[in-house]
Amino acid sequence: MKKRVVLALGGNALQKNGEATAEAQKKVATEVGEVIASLAGKYEIIVAHGNGPQVGNILIHEEQASTEKAPAMPLETTVAMSQGQIGYWLTQAINNAFAKNGKKAKVATIISQIVVDRDDPAFKNPTKPIGQFYNEKQAKALAKVTGWTVKEDAGRGWRRVVASPKPIDIVEKRTILELVKDGIIVIAAGGGGIPVTRTKVLKRLKGVDAVIDKDYAAEKLAEETRADIFVSVTAVPNVFINYGTPEQTALHKVTIKELENYRRHNQFKAGSMLPKVEAAIKFASKKDRIGIITDIEHLSETLQGKAGTIVKK
Amino acid sequence: MKKRVVLALGGNALQKNGEATAEAQKKVATEVGEVIASLAGKYEIIVAHGNGPQVGNILIHEEQASTEKAPAMPLETTVAMSQGQIGYWLTQAINNAFAKNGKKAKVATIISQIVVDRDDPAFKNPTKPIGQFYNEKQAKALAKVTGWTVKEDAGRGWRRVVASPKPIDIVEKRTILELVKDGIIVIAAGGGGIPVTRTKVLKRLKGVDAVIDKDYAAEKLAEETRADIFVSVTAVPNVFINYGTPEQTALHKVTIKELENYRRHNQFKAGSMLPKVEAAIKFASKKDRIGIITDIEHLSETLQGKAGTIVKK
Repeated sequence: MKKRVVLALGGNALQKNGEATAEAQKKVATEVGEVIASLAGKYEIIVAHGNGPQVGNILIHEEQASTEKAPAMPLETTVAMSQGQIGYWLTQAINNAFAKNGKKAKVATIISQIVVDRDDPAFKNPTKPIGQFYNEKQAKALAKVTGWTVKEDAGRGWRRVVASPKPIDIVEKRTILELVKDGIIVIAAGGGGIPVTRTKVLKRLKGVDAVIDKDYAAEKLAEETRADIFVSVTAVPNVFINYGTPEQTALHKVTIKELENYRRHNQFKAGSMLPKVEAAIKFASKKDRIGIITDIEHLSETLQGKAGTIVKK
Repeated sequence: MKKRVVLALGGNALQKNGEATAEAQKKVATEVGEVIASLAGKYEIIVAHGNGPQVGNILIHEEQASTEKAPAMPLETTVAMSQGQIGYWLTQAINNAFAKNGKKAKVATIISQIVVDRDDPAFKNPTKPIGQFYNEKQAKALAKVTGWTVKEDAGRGWRRVVASPKPIDIVEKRTILELVKDGIIVIAAGGGGIPVTRTKVLKRLKGVDAVIDKDYAAEKLAEETRADIFVSVTAVPNVFINYGTPEQTALHKVTIKELENYRRHNQFKAGSMLPKVEAAIKFASKKDRIGIITDIEHLSETLQGKAGTIVKK
């Protein structure tokens, strides 16, 4: 029986050197699609992906050109738009990778809503900067009109900040599971999923302006779909300790215990390697599950145990 | 056994009185979702939908706020974005309609590519206006830079025009069929589908800037998924002859022959009722298949044979 793998592609995975045209991103998607297609004979595959740079550009366009007749879409809806956009590129890339070998791909992108808790403490302290930069005056004026929280962003100007709550449920999980069991490569939970809250009694869903970390979302998806392997596909082949120093060392096979120890010693950068390490630890904490962190170039080798950072209980 | 129904929701179905905010469109989606949920006990349902006003606004935003760092997405990619956007709203509306009755919805939006023929005569004579208005000078300058075809649009200014080729294949048809057979309400072929061409030998897919008529696309989807009933859900309860004159008469049960006769007498307006009538004729031309044209308010009654325009061979 094939092992089930959830791949979490980095948000920057499709924008090499910041090249943001559709053409440039499709070209990168083509490479990613070929790697995924090459794995499909051995694994059942679910692909989650980030959307940072893409949803950023959508938001900028929506906000800058907003008029009464053509009003800007809210953040949660732009996440859905970015799922369509990136999902389309990846789907087509996988279609074409199979076609190259004279085969028909079975691949589908599912628009995915992910439930977050309205009482998640993240909503009290929004930290995730999104959209365009403003000067202080503009930002504060906008905040008054819209109710946004705005903050100064690392000396580069003022931006809207939103909450980054934890994912607690994936609305489309049953459909995703049925598809992957049927041998279909599923692209889901794009951009960490469209964040929604669910009312307690009526179970009513409602979009909420927030950003779910894509590694946490993908890890949740891996749990819900009973995957065997969870991979954070990032820009580096391994997790490193003492990163960027002369003592920099790549981690290969590590236990959760070792990795937790490094984490306690602040070896991993928040918003960068830390969520990947945390997601890998969370996933691998259950018996017979493997967490992996590597780049797309080493993905195949790492799945064979020969490269990357492999986390086991 | 449940009958299988493909619903083609009009492009304006979610924008009542031109209200284009996400909030207003979600509100309309809520009503649509309740009708769809009420039918799910009796029918297997696939929902296709238009995207005219939505993709129009996305294009305007993309083009007006395009920069080198955040470049505008091409038309085919904006169709994918609108599939994510509208698919999300409809999915959530259906989720909530089920939740209202204490039930869990099984519903999923599939990003859908539809193959068109690179040699379709439509590409030689683009007719479909899209995106924003320009003055003549701007339009002609843009055409030079981008290769666009631009035309004067009914005295309202100049616009880009693109081809509206016929759909010939739906890339995701197998997945859509598997899902609907599993009892999942599927939202697919949004906005007539993302138009792609397929190379003859290598079967390579490539997005193409065009707009596929959503009624033709949905009809093709109904054929490919072996549906029993195809419904164009539009703004009027029936097809009328002598529309807008004192002799205006609603059509109830009609044969293909009668409808073709009216069509020959130019009873149906191009780009409006004509594609719906043509799609209904095409679908119903095969034995035991029914084509329907009605509005969302009369949908349920019409499926029971008590309202709307019902087309049979």
